[in-house]
Amino acid sequence: MIIDSHGHYTTAPTAHNEWREKQLDAFLTGRAAPTYPVISDDEIRETIEQNQLRLLTERGADMTIFSPRASAMAHHEGDLAVGIAWARACNDLIARVVDLFPDTFIGVCQLPQFAGEPLDAAVAELERCVGMGFVGLNLNPDPSGGHWSSPPLTDRYWYSMYEKMVELDVPAMVHVSASCTPVFHATGAHYINADTTAFMQLIQGDLFGDFPALRLVIPHGGGAVPYHWGRYRGLADMLKKPPLATHVMQNVFFDTCVYHQPGIDLLFEVIDVDNILFGSEMVGAVRGIDPTTGHYFDDTKRYVDALDLSDADRTKVYSGNARRVYPRLDASLRAKGL
Amino acid sequence: MIIDSHGHYTTAPTAHNEWREKQLDAFLTGRAAPTYPVISDDEIRETIEQNQLRLLTERGADMTIFSPRASAMAHHEGDLAVGIAWARACNDLIARVVDLFPDTFIGVCQLPQFAGEPLDAAVAELERCVGMGFVGLNLNPDPSGGHWSSPPLTDRYWYSMYEKMVELDVPAMVHVSASCTPVFHATGAHYINADTTAFMQLIQGDLFGDFPALRLVIPHGGGAVPYHWGRYRGLADMLKKPPLATHVMQNVFFDTCVYHQPGIDLLFEVIDVDNILFGSEMVGAVRGIDPTTGHYFDDTKRYVDALDLSDADRTKVYSGNARRVYPRLDASLRAKGL
Repeated sequence: MIIDSHGHYTTAPTAHNEWREKQLDAFLTGRAAPTYPVISDDEIRETIEQNQLRLLTERGADMTIFSPRASAMAHHEGDLAVGIAWARACNDLIARVVDLFPDTFIGVCQLPQFAGEPLDAAVAELERCVGMGFVGLNLNPDPSGGHWSSPPLTDRYWYSMYEKMVELDVPAMVHVSASCTPVFHATGAHYINADTTAFMQLIQGDLFGDFPALRLVIPHGGGAVPYHWGRYRGLADMLKKPPLATHVMQNVFFDTCVYHQPGIDLLFEVIDVDNILFGSEMVGAVRGIDPTTGHYFDDTKRYVDALDLSDADRTKVYSGNARRVYPRLDASLRAKGL
Repeated sequence: MIIDSHGHYTTAPTAHNEWREKQLDAFLTGRAAPTYPVISDDEIRETIEQNQLRLLTERGADMTIFSPRASAMAHHEGDLAVGIAWARACNDLIARVVDLFPDTFIGVCQLPQFAGEPLDAAVAELERCVGMGFVGLNLNPDPSGGHWSSPPLTDRYWYSMYEKMVELDVPAMVHVSASCTPVFHATGAHYINADTTAFMQLIQGDLFGDFPALRLVIPHGGGAVPYHWGRYRGLADMLKKPPLATHVMQNVFFDTCVYHQPGIDLLFEVIDVDNILFGSEMVGAVRGIDPTTGHYFDDTKRYVDALDLSDADRTKVYSGNARRVYPRLDASLRAKGL
């Protein structure tokens, strides 16, 4: 079984995206938000069948851990109430996808975060979504959209979320959203920087001393971290922290959203196979075909297939690690006899 | 000949660093800055001989392109006048190092940048330093120290500097300084993020269309870029830009400040050897010994030596590319018959 651990609903029905625009317009002009539109099952089926499901089948994977479009979370827009309504709308749509394709998708939720606001609404939305069968969450370390006004992930500001995650036994993918500053291209700088930043915050702190059962997935192959693995090992040493293997790598996982073979090779050379989850983030940031290979950049399964992995290790990367990191996914699969 | 393209005077005499503290204290309390202290040649010799020169000799390199301590530039401290005095003091100290060790060091200058202020003072300081024999500059894309309040490097805000660089035929290393926000660890996040951010800005724009002769060095192995080379090639394609080889890689160079063998292997696998300059940034961010090798993390010459490079390519990386990117260095060496 091959589980893509990193998929977003980037092809959501137009009416859903239009509602968001109207919602923000209403906020800006002081009016009440419009009613959420009626979207038929057929519309949802079509957006999935022509995109994620088609590509999943073509590429030979079986299912996707699926969350709302990351760049559209845009936690910096509106206010907390706007974010709560938007997160509910996005998560409810994911729940409908999962209901329509229960063998192929399982949900991860977007949270109503707002920079400077407490996390109560986010904790409540996580509980609601787990009640609907979701197995994880996307946690934005910078809900300001590039201004980085929130404290580091090791700060007690985030602890109520971590407590709920441990209680519900769900991991978070650390994933920023759109950038609202021209210096940071969203998918070319902000995403990768956030991955790198989060990992370094975890080195500096001792979050997993406080939450030994907490699990965080750092996407996009861990940002710059594996490429600079010597730097991070050296910095941990200079900061008088334990080796990374025990300090953070019992609790931190990277996905395979690295869009060329040499990058994937490096990832598997320096990071323990137990810490790597297969992921592609398709249909996502990079949608074209690599002229040097003739295949989609984000067809990461090809790169993983090209590795010289044992069967046991391949199984870990393709499904075992995901089932371990997302126990509610594992339970769901077991209930189906998988 | 082996030229380390990335060295900072991280071991400057104590009196120099103490003056900076007094200067900032005077600024904050509204007093005039103190007189810069007398520092003897012997003091300078000692700080160099026991550190950079010793390690350079031990590791088998010949010379270093040398600039003031990057993290101490701290452009966000004080105001522009404070920054002008600090840059002059730092650059004058580099000039003294070069005078004392003319065969081993050549200068690159720190600029008096201040977020929101024009670049006239920076341009003037560059001219002054080139007049003293300096061969390049460090350009901080974020003089706010982590708040990223300046426009992208492709913005016309920076053009007066680029015009002067082209006129003087000197390249810039794009190098941030200290971070004044707790979210970004300076050497573990801010440095690497800035490298990645700068490269993506260059993809988005067409800076080298306006300045075909401009040369920028992106340090620390290009941040996250080589690891995510497929992402950047794919994003350039999505943004309808020319291939990276012609769009940016005629003008952009990466150094080898990547502190483990797999990272260096990847760098040389994906980046053309013409675009790679040997560098170590010693004595710098990561000063310890890698327990897996028994050697210093930042002894990057060992990693380069371990590559299967032709003699011609090795010469490019160790000296040829640096002489090409820094023509004033080349002229200085030629004048010595080297």
